[in-house]
Amino acid sequence: MDGNIPDAFPSGVEVVTRCRRLLEPALRDAISTLHPWAARMAAFSMGWSDVDGRPREGGVGKSLRPAIVMLSAEAVGATADSALPGAVAVELVHAFSLAHDDIIDRDELRRHRAALWKAYGVGPALLAGDALLALAVGQLAGRPAAMPYLSAALLELVQGQTADMAFEQRPWRGPDEVTIDEYAEMAAGKTGSLIGAAAAIGVALGGAPEIADRMWQMGRDLGVAFQIVDDVLGIWGDPQITGKPVYSDLWREKKTLPVLAALASDGTAARELSALLAAGVTDEDSVRHAARLVEEAGGRAEAEALAARYMSSALGVIDECLPDGGQLRELCTWLVNRVS
Amino acid sequence: MDGNIPDAFPSGVEVVTRCRRLLEPALRDAISTLHPWAARMAAFSMGWSDVDGRPREGGVGKSLRPAIVMLSAEAVGATADSALPGAVAVELVHAFSLAHDDIIDRDELRRHRAALWKAYGVGPALLAGDALLALAVGQLAGRPAAMPYLSAALLELVQGQTADMAFEQRPWRGPDEVTIDEYAEMAAGKTGSLIGAAAAIGVALGGAPEIADRMWQMGRDLGVAFQIVDDVLGIWGDPQITGKPVYSDLWREKKTLPVLAALASDGTAARELSALLAAGVTDEDSVRHAARLVEEAGGRAEAEALAARYMSSALGVIDECLPDGGQLRELCTWLVNRVS
Repeated sequence: MDGNIPDAFPSGVEVVTRCRRLLEPALRDAISTLHPWAARMAAFSMGWSDVDGRPREGGVGKSLRPAIVMLSAEAVGATADSALPGAVAVELVHAFSLAHDDIIDRDELRRHRAALWKAYGVGPALLAGDALLALAVGQLAGRPAAMPYLSAALLELVQGQTADMAFEQRPWRGPDEVTIDEYAEMAAGKTGSLIGAAAAIGVALGGAPEIADRMWQMGRDLGVAFQIVDDVLGIWGDPQITGKPVYSDLWREKKTLPVLAALASDGTAARELSALLAAGVTDEDSVRHAARLVEEAGGRAEAEALAARYMSSALGVIDECLPDGGQLRELCTWLVNRVS
Repeated sequence: MDGNIPDAFPSGVEVVTRCRRLLEPALRDAISTLHPWAARMAAFSMGWSDVDGRPREGGVGKSLRPAIVMLSAEAVGATADSALPGAVAVELVHAFSLAHDDIIDRDELRRHRAALWKAYGVGPALLAGDALLALAVGQLAGRPAAMPYLSAALLELVQGQTADMAFEQRPWRGPDEVTIDEYAEMAAGKTGSLIGAAAAIGVALGGAPEIADRMWQMGRDLGVAFQIVDDVLGIWGDPQITGKPVYSDLWREKKTLPVLAALASDGTAARELSALLAAGVTDEDSVRHAARLVEEAGGRAEAEALAARYMSSALGVIDECLPDGGQLRELCTWLVNRVS
């Protein structure tokens, strides 16, 4: 969910730019209350400055989660401004999770720049992540209609990240293999929960807390769809667009949905894939072969079908609960349709 | 604030044991909702199990912060039970901060056992800390009278820890030296904020939110007194009791209050100390000499006087706001009087 807004979503550029213009001053205000050292690291992680604290052009990612907060508030007839603390909170939680995830995964790059820990060290980056989270909680601490969704998202985010980490230590096949239901639960936590919180907090702050639970579920489904699309791109995506090497998730032997679905299909290709993965993907030939087998076993098609089902469920909630949610619907659709 | 309750506080043993009996089942319930992997790390950090997950005798530290929550609730006429979510929350935040602090400070030991990161690795321990924090926030997310204090404590905790870390890079003397006011602010954040939150949350959940702000300030003052006493023990404390080598904070060149106060005194001993610290403490003779100079320059006496002032301010608030706060007063007094 980083990078630029593609041209395929022209009206979205305007919507997201408008939301970002509201967001950024509030986000800068929040971060300016931190200890200068933590504020410098936070500004770096937001893309506002370089490692030494010199301002730079560019800045935060697409701020899609804050846009979901604001568009959800507008969809229930409130102003985007009324949901601003929620927008700031979800963006801060997102930044917190990136800072800590990069330490955990030892990823050295983030948004084509040094990861926070790579730039400042593990201890300081860990602490900066904690500071971002503390600021986030502070935004909504006195708002009991919204706070429980932020809190639930935080817990599910950590649970999903833990599950994803635990998946790495489980076998590809056998009684302890990762099921598609377990995958969906992990993705709902790791990717869906903060999107769900964004939508729920938006309507709650916008004065319609009675539909917040449904928006929470909507966002979780949207997140699962998004994660599956991300998995598909992680194997077959254009490196120019994804910023990752081709087949990167296969190289990393990640338990992504296309592979899990391929293995579960149980045909000849699935058996061959299973043997290949058990032996380990070691060179370009074998990784290309694995990708072909995933496709032959129907893993890619199954992933795309499953993403479409989750997506349709999410859009159904928007259509039912938010007749004035056109812009939100468009943003959510764009988010997931990057695959095509 | 770890280890056993000394015999000097006999009635306190009973009080703290009673609070801990209420706390532990609720704390175990909360932790049992985590991913099994995170739950195992959390149980290890609580002292309930060994690295492999086998149950062991012993368990959490003294649970003093939860006791402050419960005794504060009782002091306003409520049951300890009514404040249980707050007690669980502050203990979880405490555990979160220990898990992350040990990563940041690279401390390999905690409560005479392996630090969490040493036992499970940096990434998992970081994530377990995040999980503990997420659980803590979840306890109070729907309680707007209490949640803002937890949130404020979280932010100040991180700010105080950041300030403490930044102190390490500042000189002992000169225009950029650490002032006693800066020290007090750091200690109020790092040590005082969670104690302040405990007291404020206790009275808020106990039905007296109108005095929560004063209890917050009370706890912060108590925390500064506690931290100063801890600094004194970190230089002159009995290694048998503190569990740290003699003069340990001098070896680590930490900017503790006795040293800052000694340097600020500006006499002969202060100048000699300043020169010694500038050269660096390198052997047992020089560290023993430094400790003597701190004492000669009045650093120890000033530290003890300052701790007493903060302590008296804290007790004044209890006396004024909580005529039925006898047990809370006793606990707070004991906390700080360990020095004598």
